[in-house]
Amino acid sequence: MDVLEHTAQPKRERAGRGARREQRSHGPRGLGRPYIVRNIPTYDILGEESLIRIEETADRILAEIGIEFRDDPVALDHWRRAGAMVDGVLVRFEPGMLREILRSAPASFIQHARNPARSVEIGGKSVVFSPAYGSPFVMDLDKGRRYGTIEDFRNFVKLAQASPWLHHSGGTICEPVDVPVNKRHLDMVYSHIKYSDRAFMGSVTAESRAEDSIDMARLVFGRDFVDQNCVILGNVNVNSPLVWDATMTAALRAYARANQAAVIVPFILGGAMGPVTNAGAIAQAHAETMAGCALTQLERKGAPVIYGNFLSSMSLRSGSPTFGTPEPAIGSMVVGQLARRLNLPLRCSGNFTTSKLPDAHAMNEGTMSMLAAVHCGANFILHSAGFLDGLLSMSYEKFVMDADFCGALHTYLDGVTIDDNQLALDAFREVGPGSHFFGSQHTLANYETAFWDSEMADNEPFEKWEAAGSVDAATRANGKWKKMLAEYEAPPLDEGIDEALKDFIARRKASMDDAWY
Amino acid sequence: MDVLEHTAQPKRERAGRGARREQRSHGPRGLGRPYIVRNIPTYDILGEESLIRIEETADRILAEIGIEFRDDPVALDHWRRAGAMVDGVLVRFEPGMLREILRSAPASFIQHARNPARSVEIGGKSVVFSPAYGSPFVMDLDKGRRYGTIEDFRNFVKLAQASPWLHHSGGTICEPVDVPVNKRHLDMVYSHIKYSDRAFMGSVTAESRAEDSIDMARLVFGRDFVDQNCVILGNVNVNSPLVWDATMTAALRAYARANQAAVIVPFILGGAMGPVTNAGAIAQAHAETMAGCALTQLERKGAPVIYGNFLSSMSLRSGSPTFGTPEPAIGSMVVGQLARRLNLPLRCSGNFTTSKLPDAHAMNEGTMSMLAAVHCGANFILHSAGFLDGLLSMSYEKFVMDADFCGALHTYLDGVTIDDNQLALDAFREVGPGSHFFGSQHTLANYETAFWDSEMADNEPFEKWEAAGSVDAATRANGKWKKMLAEYEAPPLDEGIDEALKDFIARRKASMDDAWY
Repeated sequence: MDVLEHTAQPKRERAGRGARREQRSHGPRGLGRPYIVRNIPTYDILGEESLIRIEETADRILAEIGIEFRDDPVALDHWRRAGAMVDGVLVRFEPGMLREILRSAPASFIQHARNPARSVEIGGKSVVFSPAYGSPFVMDLDKGRRYGTIEDFRNFVKLAQASPWLHHSGGTICEPVDVPVNKRHLDMVYSHIKYSDRAFMGSVTAESRAEDSIDMARLVFGRDFVDQNCVILGNVNVNSPLVWDATMTAALRAYARANQAAVIVPFILGGAMGPVTNAGAIAQAHAETMAGCALTQLERKGAPVIYGNFLSSMSLRSGSPTFGTPEPAIGSMVVGQLARRLNLPLRCSGNFTTSKLPDAHAMNEGTMSMLAAVHCGANFILHSAGFLDGLLSMSYEKFVMDADFCGALHTYLDGVTIDDNQLALDAFREVGPGSHFFGSQHTLANYETAFWDSEMADNEPFEKWEAAGSVDAATRANGKWKKMLAEYEAPPLDEGIDEALKDFIARRKASMDDAWY
Repeated sequence: MDVLEHTAQPKRERAGRGARREQRSHGPRGLGRPYIVRNIPTYDILGEESLIRIEETADRILAEIGIEFRDDPVALDHWRRAGAMVDGVLVRFEPGMLREILRSAPASFIQHARNPARSVEIGGKSVVFSPAYGSPFVMDLDKGRRYGTIEDFRNFVKLAQASPWLHHSGGTICEPVDVPVNKRHLDMVYSHIKYSDRAFMGSVTAESRAEDSIDMARLVFGRDFVDQNCVILGNVNVNSPLVWDATMTAALRAYARANQAAVIVPFILGGAMGPVTNAGAIAQAHAETMAGCALTQLERKGAPVIYGNFLSSMSLRSGSPTFGTPEPAIGSMVVGQLARRLNLPLRCSGNFTTSKLPDAHAMNEGTMSMLAAVHCGANFILHSAGFLDGLLSMSYEKFVMDADFCGALHTYLDGVTIDDNQLALDAFREVGPGSHFFGSQHTLANYETAFWDSEMADNEPFEKWEAAGSVDAATRANGKWKKMLAEYEAPPLDEGIDEALKDFIARRKASMDDAWY
């Protein structure tokens, strides 16, 4: 297959004149990059001693309390052979044992896209933005909130594909509830392959669905290639606190067995699935995530795996979960430090909020949450675009707002370049005190790529904005996603592969009755 | 005066049971603190070598190009006596000279409030949130945008006073355009003293107005106290690039002469008043700010002074200034490092945006901008609440949204506490795998202060939110500021002081004709 003939190489920024010319011909800075290579350090908020205390607490949770692995005898067998203490479904671990097992996991790997120019590195200094995942509902300003359908699903795949600031097609962008539960994964994976040429995620809701997803990837990339390279991710959740159920462990083992990357994510709402105190929730998350990551290595040593992070809090007034609040933001920074001490790629959550509209509340929480993911060193940022309504709804308007913010973050993560051109001493000599820089040589040579210029912001003077109808951000976003869908162009897909996928889906569907739950 | 009998001591968090009891009785964490003492490190993005290159560029700008000090012979005389090269109005400085002069400025100082429990520390690990400053217009959802009046000014002083999450009353919160230009400062300073018991800022638009502001502070705090303690700030702007005009230098000297703190702020829109490249704009800002800060020390050695930061960018499509974009956010982090290397307190700008409404655009940019100020180590964050419309309008709704976010930042800046209670090992022992933490001992002991609970966010389930009228964030904010104004209670003010202030204002106004520009 020609899509496999060369391995994707990110276009990293080059210093000097050549790089500037390249940027200019591509428009805003960062456009066309398959992912970001961060040029600012991570924001490390805790010192060594505090990190060790959290790690020790995680070790004591693992050794003294343990984690249940329910209904998965293969997982229990793995643990037994690795030397863990297995008592029924409860598994306990000697301090340091999981860290030792995790030494075989790669610190960084490439997830290949069917368009090799869009393959992404996950690990190290890379940052990959992926759409939100898992909402049963969708929303837009015209039709309000309703259950998601396969048409919505395809729309979001198309919007992600059409956005220059996302790097990944995501997974279950919304639940297509008009397709039977047991057949959905086939249509979702097909949509990712058909309507996007970016990397994507497969199903985890049953071992067979994980295997179907991987089989479909094999039809695209070839069986041998898939055995040696990561082409699909599977996002599995801990049943926090301290329980891994068989659906998830079977799925993560299926991905690992195929040398594909499982993303191991605790799901802790403090006060419910974990303690109300942040340090305790972080220690728990660390214990649960290490156990899941280590299980992938027991299934297949050296398989890629991603250390995932999900912390949240509760409203004490309403008892509702909250998102985009300060505790998980700060917690993410600590989790990032813990993941780096294990030398594992890190997944964080992006734009979270409880708002039911793409309003000020939504972007206040979303921006705080997204910046925490960016600062903490996350390599794979799931939920980068679209979420509203406490993760229950994908919003068309919020999706394009968030994608635009992902664009701003390209510039942000470039940091500050320190060289003679950027320091601009000649410009000061040319302009001098009291003049302006508009027409200076230095400005003319640099202005085209100088500043991030949001497509969604309205920077016009008030009078001009008012004369144009006083349009708010949500209404602009409403026009934007419609324009993007109208102008969407499908990436070319080899006809033979397309046929093979359709045939596979038809055969698999024919073997199943419809199941709606 | 009894307000001066004790010096304010911030209620810092104490570890252990006593602190938790104290917090509980005060409601959400951080409530009642006069300012924040940060418990997370600053976010330092550049290494030593890069910082030195910026400092060297600033030194070369100062030595080779120089700064003009226009129409202020006293300032030129200061520079001459300090050993600078003065050629007409152009002043050039040997490398390192300004840094040497700045060694006499305090790294930290207390700005006293008339209520000593509300005095603030400015410097070190302190973070002080102050309202936005300088808009000619005000806005609300009911009446739209119009010129500000003294009634609006008083309203914003009252809203700041009523907000538990701001620490300072600010300065020119909006321009009261219904008061003659030459008399405004008297009514503004009076409003701060009368309707707030927090620390505040005085006028800088003429030397006499600066002196009037300080004289009014003397009526409150006593002449001798003011000579030895900071009770008022004056925010002065460089006429970037590389020009200080006499209005500003005379004002900054007036504040310094009275031992009050000038805030020295460049005003650089990249591509206009500075280069389009971030590193160059930062070097310029550093040069301009150092010169202004040093001038305060020549006027009065040891006077408090605040190193200010203001960077912004331009839209390349419209030519309009932009705010809340990634370049200034990243630039702030670098400026913070430079200020700390001078051992000076740092001022940054908070919630900036070009949006003309309190919408998603406003809070996306505002949140990014505010978090940059918090991360970069700013001690005094001007413009923490209220700005819309590219700094031209104070919004009532945005003010209360921003103030609520300031509340979230109290929790954020507390970071993660690592102790046995927070690590919660006993809670895991109690709950075990697969259960929940709702009713656990540990939850009951900690839940009341566990999580930030925004007053402005709606965390309810969708159905409940919809049944309550599907209210968006801006509409909630509209109700909130009206409620705050309706419930506002003026802090007590000594009648003798009040009379003295009124008498001073009447005499000063009687000595002036009305001037409207």
